[in-house]
Amino acid sequence: MLTAAEVRGLRSLRDKKHREELGLFAVEGEKAVREALAAKFSFEEIYATEAWRGDRTQYVTSEEMARLSHFPMPSSVFAVGRLRRAELPEGALGQGLTLALDGVQDPGNVGTLLRIADWFAVDRVLLSPDCADLFSPKVLQASAGSFARVAAHTGELALLLAGVAVPVLGCDLDGTDVHALPPLRDAVIVIGSEGRGLSPAVARLVTLRVTIPRFGGAESLNAAVAAAVVCDNLRRPR
Amino acid sequence: MLTAAEVRGLRSLRDKKHREELGLFAVEGEKAVREALAAKFSFEEIYATEAWRGDRTQYVTSEEMARLSHFPMPSSVFAVGRLRRAELPEGALGQGLTLALDGVQDPGNVGTLLRIADWFAVDRVLLSPDCADLFSPKVLQASAGSFARVAAHTGELALLLAGVAVPVLGCDLDGTDVHALPPLRDAVIVIGSEGRGLSPAVARLVTLRVTIPRFGGAESLNAAVAAAVVCDNLRRPR
Repeated sequence: MLTAAEVRGLRSLRDKKHREELGLFAVEGEKAVREALAAKFSFEEIYATEAWRGDRTQYVTSEEMARLSHFPMPSSVFAVGRLRRAELPEGALGQGLTLALDGVQDPGNVGTLLRIADWFAVDRVLLSPDCADLFSPKVLQASAGSFARVAAHTGELALLLAGVAVPVLGCDLDGTDVHALPPLRDAVIVIGSEGRGLSPAVARLVTLRVTIPRFGGAESLNAAVAAAVVCDNLRRPR
Repeated sequence: MLTAAEVRGLRSLRDKKHREELGLFAVEGEKAVREALAAKFSFEEIYATEAWRGDRTQYVTSEEMARLSHFPMPSSVFAVGRLRRAELPEGALGQGLTLALDGVQDPGNVGTLLRIADWFAVDRVLLSPDCADLFSPKVLQASAGSFARVAAHTGELALLLAGVAVPVLGCDLDGTDVHALPPLRDAVIVIGSEGRGLSPAVARLVTLRVTIPRFGGAESLNAAVAAAVVCDNLRRPR
């Protein structure tokens, strides 16, 4: 049985301010929690109803879960993890693939991008400060556990990317055909916001504009979809 | 000034039952409405606030828009279209590319899949009856206007796909590498639900299992993301 104060504390993890104050975040959803556990993520607490098939630290009733949950349709599990914000190691961007998200505000898109980064073994994800917060419930759920495997860092992209020696790829409508990309083991791929595209300061740092060939009528692709197509083409054997 | 009955009628378009009764649906969001207009979609009514830069049939205040809207953050425009459900022409699946959605329930995913179909000039999209409804507000918004350009048909996939002579592709973890696919101008690509994958009746109709190579740790890709990578590979010149 949870106390009213415990419920309030756990519910408050939906807000970034409270997450930062408490140094904690919550992950909901069977898939997201199971995948995080599979990635050896060590939760502080796992609250679960009897429908959850897995370890728990505390049993809660469905009614209690409904009060904890950030979602209209609560899952059987609500896991609490310790917030860690890792510094980007000096010179890291010079090696491997980096996905840099510039003002991606939709949390579903940010979570999906983490999952894409995980699938294609992107080495790290950078988020500009105006992206959806990495530890928000919707980002974590959409990442399907990939948040636990992908190195992610928040910071000013224009500062982080200034002076990198590897190609900085940006999606554009009249760039190099993504199917004709040279093999690139080390690169940064910048992904802009759906509405506004790349910010001017980041757009200036793009050294290789790439285009996903369009065959039909849509004006653009969703940001996460575009990132996945670029990653698939970069990872493709030649 | 809208009457209370008009507001009620327009608000009710968020429910499938009322859409079917009235034979109407609503599209919200500047991008979705603008793209539908660009695709020459002819709306019955366009309700818009003064922030909307485009044609309108009726001016509404921000307060009225907040009452009409299906979203917590209303846009400046609420357009009403006539519901049309086109029959799939006999033998249509034998020619061109078909994207068949099997139980894709997330409306954002269904809308994103319509947008992907539009970008890659997929000839038609089939939706099983348990997919998110094509005319639901979130599907239409996520499609960014592509609903107006893509031929979409709802029906029992196992019946529609039975006996098609073209390859039926299904994503799987141990199929043919998508990078090694033969050129296919005519094919059906089936996309399953995130949680349950393909239904058994549809899975039995798959004749070519394809795999998007995985390089990292994620267990799977989002359904729309996987569809886009397959489409990009099918459209790729050889």
